[in-house]
Amino acid sequence: MSDQLRQQALHYHAYPVPGKIAVELTKPADTAEDLALAYSPGVAEPVREIAQDAENVYKYTGKGNMVAVISNGTAILGLGNLGPLASKPVMEGKALLFKRFAGLDAIDIEVKHRTIDEFVDTVANIADTFGGINLEDIKAPDCFEIEKKLIERCQVPVFHDDQHGTAIVTAAGMLNALELQGKQLEEAIIVCLGAGAAAVACMELLIQCGAQREKIYMLDRKGVIHTRRDDLNEYKKLFANNTDKRTLEDVIQGADIFVGVSGPDLLPPEALALMADKPIVFACSNPDPEIKPALAHQVRDDLIMGTGRSDYPNQINNVLCFPFLFRGALDVRASEINTEMKIAAVDAIRHLAKEPVPAEVLKAAGVEALSFGREYIIPKPMDPRLLPRVAKAVAQAAVESGVARIAMPQNYMV
Amino acid sequence: MSDQLRQQALHYHAYPVPGKIAVELTKPADTAEDLALAYSPGVAEPVREIAQDAENVYKYTGKGNMVAVISNGTAILGLGNLGPLASKPVMEGKALLFKRFAGLDAIDIEVKHRTIDEFVDTVANIADTFGGINLEDIKAPDCFEIEKKLIERCQVPVFHDDQHGTAIVTAAGMLNALELQGKQLEEAIIVCLGAGAAAVACMELLIQCGAQREKIYMLDRKGVIHTRRDDLNEYKKLFANNTDKRTLEDVIQGADIFVGVSGPDLLPPEALALMADKPIVFACSNPDPEIKPALAHQVRDDLIMGTGRSDYPNQINNVLCFPFLFRGALDVRASEINTEMKIAAVDAIRHLAKEPVPAEVLKAAGVEALSFGREYIIPKPMDPRLLPRVAKAVAQAAVESGVARIAMPQNYMV
Repeated sequence: MSDQLRQQALHYHAYPVPGKIAVELTKPADTAEDLALAYSPGVAEPVREIAQDAENVYKYTGKGNMVAVISNGTAILGLGNLGPLASKPVMEGKALLFKRFAGLDAIDIEVKHRTIDEFVDTVANIADTFGGINLEDIKAPDCFEIEKKLIERCQVPVFHDDQHGTAIVTAAGMLNALELQGKQLEEAIIVCLGAGAAAVACMELLIQCGAQREKIYMLDRKGVIHTRRDDLNEYKKLFANNTDKRTLEDVIQGADIFVGVSGPDLLPPEALALMADKPIVFACSNPDPEIKPALAHQVRDDLIMGTGRSDYPNQINNVLCFPFLFRGALDVRASEINTEMKIAAVDAIRHLAKEPVPAEVLKAAGVEALSFGREYIIPKPMDPRLLPRVAKAVAQAAVESGVARIAMPQNYMV
Repeated sequence: MSDQLRQQALHYHAYPVPGKIAVELTKPADTAEDLALAYSPGVAEPVREIAQDAENVYKYTGKGNMVAVISNGTAILGLGNLGPLASKPVMEGKALLFKRFAGLDAIDIEVKHRTIDEFVDTVANIADTFGGINLEDIKAPDCFEIEKKLIERCQVPVFHDDQHGTAIVTAAGMLNALELQGKQLEEAIIVCLGAGAAAVACMELLIQCGAQREKIYMLDRKGVIHTRRDDLNEYKKLFANNTDKRTLEDVIQGADIFVGVSGPDLLPPEALALMADKPIVFACSNPDPEIKPALAHQVRDDLIMGTGRSDYPNQINNVLCFPFLFRGALDVRASEINTEMKIAAVDAIRHLAKEPVPAEVLKAAGVEALSFGREYIIPKPMDPRLLPRVAKAVAQAAVESGVARIAMPQNYMV
């Protein structure tokens, strides 16, 4: 980050008021008559209605449009475990994105806790306040256990965006890249550099989409995750490959796909040179990718590349998914976000990249033209079609897979 | 409540959108450049600043203007224990009042829990998210223990409005009523009908203001709370009077003050007739007071009376206090709301009633004139002077009593 951007970012957060989100009233509150409806004595009436039938909470309160963005600050961006308080700007930022992109009212909650169970208890105890819960910036492997337990205990959808949001957008881009390269996911050899929350979720969703587990080589700081290692947590164990290969150089040879969720410059050009014909490289370390696009394209001219950055083509950006996924889930009161809904989001995102791009999107992206191809495998974040397409696909999948608690609203998203 | 008001209240809560509050953005979020400041990569900068110095959270996030309105739904209005979900319209209503009257961003949190300690853990774990915590509609005696434990554990002010907000407004009105009746609080015989959260807090604050504990007779459903009862919790025990009197009729004889926080029509006119000359009756049961004002004035023409209702004179309404008290406390980052701050609020509220009333307040109240006297002992809720007066008095008291973490802002509330 440049010094100028740093100063701009601090100024943006501090002025004219601290922070980025506030509360606004959606109903008149000017006169004594207004307040007699909003509070005492009128408010007793919706209270009675909800006490009689809990579903009425969606009719008379903001619950159905409200998302909690919850963190314990143990894995903030790429900065590490800085504690709950320091995560607040990120969580408020996520809330801003929910509102900006999908009109959802999102509020941040930072949680301090001693044990995993205390975190789970805390979130489960307040969960009914909201229509859905977005977990964020929680370190692995804690995040897996936390999410699993919260899904069991909460009546509303719980979604760890660092895992599943990343996985959905990665899968959408990957399926398009494979199509362009003329390859099949079922046959692809995949190298995943990084073994944290995003890595595990990305590989699991690719497997749901057809990838073969035994063709995946995942690497952590100690190298290839293989069946003879005895230092693996239960999540890494799922990816332990029965192989003699030990290093990145060992596994990259002949690989079709490289997914990096690790750190800057960890994919050497010599390794890239060893990949199969027409390789796909998603170098998602942020802000500095595992290999810089200019260097990668020098080494390989048959490459399709994605990164986490907005200043290169093919940005693998979670904002392509989470606002719209929650919009769809909340609009049919889904009790959870299941695999069907995630794959519906993958399909909706990837198909949008194949359609003609509206002029406003080109303008926002600062380009003259965009068409489906190696430099445009995934939609731009500012594409206004994402909201109707992804939300509708997710809502339909929720209804069809039986987790929606109400029918699709009439004329939904048309 | 009339059928018409019921229907209006339900309609108000349901249309055009469910509920009463939403989230709004306070910063631009239109372009990719905006989002690069609000979220990745710019947001890393305030994160680092807060990690270095926790106080920076007030500079770069909304924490300092944010209040959590938290309930478990165990004592919702006068409706009883209907559970956390059913309390949501009330908590959203309270959030609306915080915003409407003091510009504070308030958000409701409804908590389910098994034990008192689990409730305390849950709230303490999320407390750092907010600038202050307003507890609401929690049953007695749980509320006393909960508040005490949360004050010990939280770095931000914790305030149970049903107790202390009610007590502050009651004390303000009472001191003015005593002045008008030519009586001293130190010598007053006080009957308190009701022994819940509000009753205990009202009597404790009146004692802080000069009332004598042994001149207070508190009654619960079983009659007078006296030293020979063995069924008293530790909070009622504080008011156990060493007396042979057992009934309301016994204690009301010669009493100067009646405070009712019980139920409708529980002060019979024959009992009122037995009170001392120039009595003061605060019949705060809502919506139906312990004695109707018309009936009370038939029995006594030397009476000063207050109720909880807006359609009678002298409404004892918590909204006269809590938005402004929190405003003042948050603006100097008070670590707690102590007795000095409460008494500063009492004084600011009561003195405002002695000043000429602006035309806009008369108009909002629908009256031609208001001047300090038996029909106007306390300001009207719509009085815009409450914000600067009460907030400033509370902030000053926090600074002077050593619980403020920053100095008074320059030119505060002028």
